[in-house]
Amino acid sequence: MKPNVLIIGAGGVAQVTAHKCAQWAAEFGALHMASRTRAKADAIAEGIRAKGLEAVITTHALDAMDSAAVAELIRATEAGIVINVGSAFINMTVLQGCIDTGAAYIDTAIHEDPGKVCETPPWYANYEWQRREACEAAGVTAILGAGFDPGVVNAYARLAEDEYFDKIDSIDIVDINAGSHGRWFATNFDPEINFREFTGAVYSWQGGEWRENEMFEVGREWDLPVVGKQTAYLSGHDEVHSLSARYKDADVRFWMGFGPHYINVFTVLKNLGLLSEQPVTTAEGQQVVPLKLVKAVLPDPASLAPDYTGKTCIGDLVKGTRDGKPGEVFIYNVADHKDAYNEVGSQGISYTAGVPPVAAAILIARGPWAVKRMANVEDLPARPFLELLGEMGLPTRVIDAEGDRAI
Amino acid sequence: MKPNVLIIGAGGVAQVTAHKCAQWAAEFGALHMASRTRAKADAIAEGIRAKGLEAVITTHALDAMDSAAVAELIRATEAGIVINVGSAFINMTVLQGCIDTGAAYIDTAIHEDPGKVCETPPWYANYEWQRREACEAAGVTAILGAGFDPGVVNAYARLAEDEYFDKIDSIDIVDINAGSHGRWFATNFDPEINFREFTGAVYSWQGGEWRENEMFEVGREWDLPVVGKQTAYLSGHDEVHSLSARYKDADVRFWMGFGPHYINVFTVLKNLGLLSEQPVTTAEGQQVVPLKLVKAVLPDPASLAPDYTGKTCIGDLVKGTRDGKPGEVFIYNVADHKDAYNEVGSQGISYTAGVPPVAAAILIARGPWAVKRMANVEDLPARPFLELLGEMGLPTRVIDAEGDRAI
Repeated sequence: MKPNVLIIGAGGVAQVTAHKCAQWAAEFGALHMASRTRAKADAIAEGIRAKGLEAVITTHALDAMDSAAVAELIRATEAGIVINVGSAFINMTVLQGCIDTGAAYIDTAIHEDPGKVCETPPWYANYEWQRREACEAAGVTAILGAGFDPGVVNAYARLAEDEYFDKIDSIDIVDINAGSHGRWFATNFDPEINFREFTGAVYSWQGGEWRENEMFEVGREWDLPVVGKQTAYLSGHDEVHSLSARYKDADVRFWMGFGPHYINVFTVLKNLGLLSEQPVTTAEGQQVVPLKLVKAVLPDPASLAPDYTGKTCIGDLVKGTRDGKPGEVFIYNVADHKDAYNEVGSQGISYTAGVPPVAAAILIARGPWAVKRMANVEDLPARPFLELLGEMGLPTRVIDAEGDRAI
Repeated sequence: MKPNVLIIGAGGVAQVTAHKCAQWAAEFGALHMASRTRAKADAIAEGIRAKGLEAVITTHALDAMDSAAVAELIRATEAGIVINVGSAFINMTVLQGCIDTGAAYIDTAIHEDPGKVCETPPWYANYEWQRREACEAAGVTAILGAGFDPGVVNAYARLAEDEYFDKIDSIDIVDINAGSHGRWFATNFDPEINFREFTGAVYSWQGGEWRENEMFEVGREWDLPVVGKQTAYLSGHDEVHSLSARYKDADVRFWMGFGPHYINVFTVLKNLGLLSEQPVTTAEGQQVVPLKLVKAVLPDPASLAPDYTGKTCIGDLVKGTRDGKPGEVFIYNVADHKDAYNEVGSQGISYTAGVPPVAAAILIARGPWAVKRMANVEDLPARPFLELLGEMGLPTRVIDAEGDRAI
């Protein structure tokens, strides 16, 4: 019997995930979607109907910070797979709901505590990995970080391991958004999560140990397919914290592209204390978390989609040796904001993050990724995932000594 | 009998005002100070005792938005003069308290409604001037805008009228702070009031009508005494809204100096909506006025004083004709941040704003400014005010065809 799917969240990424589940509905049983604000889920389900897709999505209101409520909804919907594309603060309660009910769990970003930023590396050890034994004991498949980055880029590293090198020396993940949303300033996903990524120390894994830098301290110009020459900065990111465990002897770094305007706005907000996750008290005695106000004044990332143009390029430059000979390969995807909007009503950043967890769900439903334990994406076979993503709209290409081609 | 004085407010300007009242205590009866937070007034009174000044300042807690409470405190303290150096939101209630009790009223900035920014010009007509008849009827002396700008610069214009020209063609008020506070960013007075000055239209009086520009739209380089070449921008400011009534046939403009760093920070905050006086709702449902949070994260202006170095130059370039011959005069003051701190524990911006209302109070106590009606500073004799200010630490100089000299 095909598993019922419960999608948790109703933001820009969830909208893509829901569309893709509906497009690939033949792989699943019933489709459900739950959000704190049920009306947001209703709007997505209505949008999918308006696209002429036949799949029915049943919506629910859910406080996903309450693991008992999550478990109750899993039981009520008889969900076999839960795709968590809600806020980064709900991972642990949703995961617990899955462990308690036996449903498979998929997320696209690491758990965060609202009151903390940038904890001790490796970040996964602070939360998710502490549930490894519980997943194993319950026979629960839990796939962590199955978005694009983290997610697809982890699979790119695994593909390099499987098909290109005997030994990997370095993995540099580069994320360039060369698109334009036409607003004075906006973040491409939840501003709160976006800024939290860059307000703490930048951790990278180099020479077998954690290195710390400041944000925007280390920049490098990259020359990438389609998007051309772009400056990207060493940044903290989830996948560094799992890839460094599998590839202990390699350097693992994440590079995010930023223009001078983003850096200026970020710097002003950060230096004034407006990106703090800690409450401040106004002269009137009101307690306010600055970052939550900044989120409130910025454009809703989902609202950017209609006007978004241009392309993203995200990939892994992997260096290593094969048969004693050094080499390098760049494994990457290029996505187009306008194509994403035309297909599912979302911009490209949401598209690249929201499609991969559906591919992961299909691979659980079909069997190859139904591993009945907790796994990061690089722990699982990469080729079936990447080939399925090619069919689903996110094709993978490689550049090596033999040129630029599809995998 | 010498009048008792009640100072309302306990910020950086109020601290200067209190020090100067204590230094010139022989001109007054008993000294009182009231603030929403009485502890702030206590700290100022204690600082004055620590300077070895003999004058005793009695402190009170007061909600100055409640005119009945203001009147009650005026009666209890038997205050003959109220110096309002609190927030710009309390002018009308404090003024009403004075009208109801007969006490003289002095303020240093125009009334503002917390929910509105940059109302229809002339601004004084929206609030204070609507109480002209009430003051006249009650025989109450109410001196509006008796800080530095507005205040001393209005007296400079009047001095030009009295002593330099038969006819005035233009008044350009230029305010340059060439000091350095050593912080990444800070405003020199209450951030809320500071930013509110620049978020609306820039009104100037030119060619006999109100002109509107945007902030930072019109900039001009000035070459001023001591501070040298500085760029200042056409800005909205209180004094334009009273001087334009007395000098209908002259152009009246206000120019404020800004460096590129201030402009950048201001532009980021404004474009993101963080300088709005209108509440926004966070994802958690909390209502927050962005400007009040920005105020909360910025340094307290009073805290800048110990490290502040450099000088301010504020003056009026007045052009006109005398005996049919055109001419121009620049009437100005230079103040030093460190000197201000050494004398009264405040930075120069607070010093230049906080001393003039004490001079106004002395002129009321002595008689020449006890006019028993509402007046802006340019409506009153300028020379006694400016000469007294020279004795009190704010000397006036002039530059004309005959050179640069004290008045």
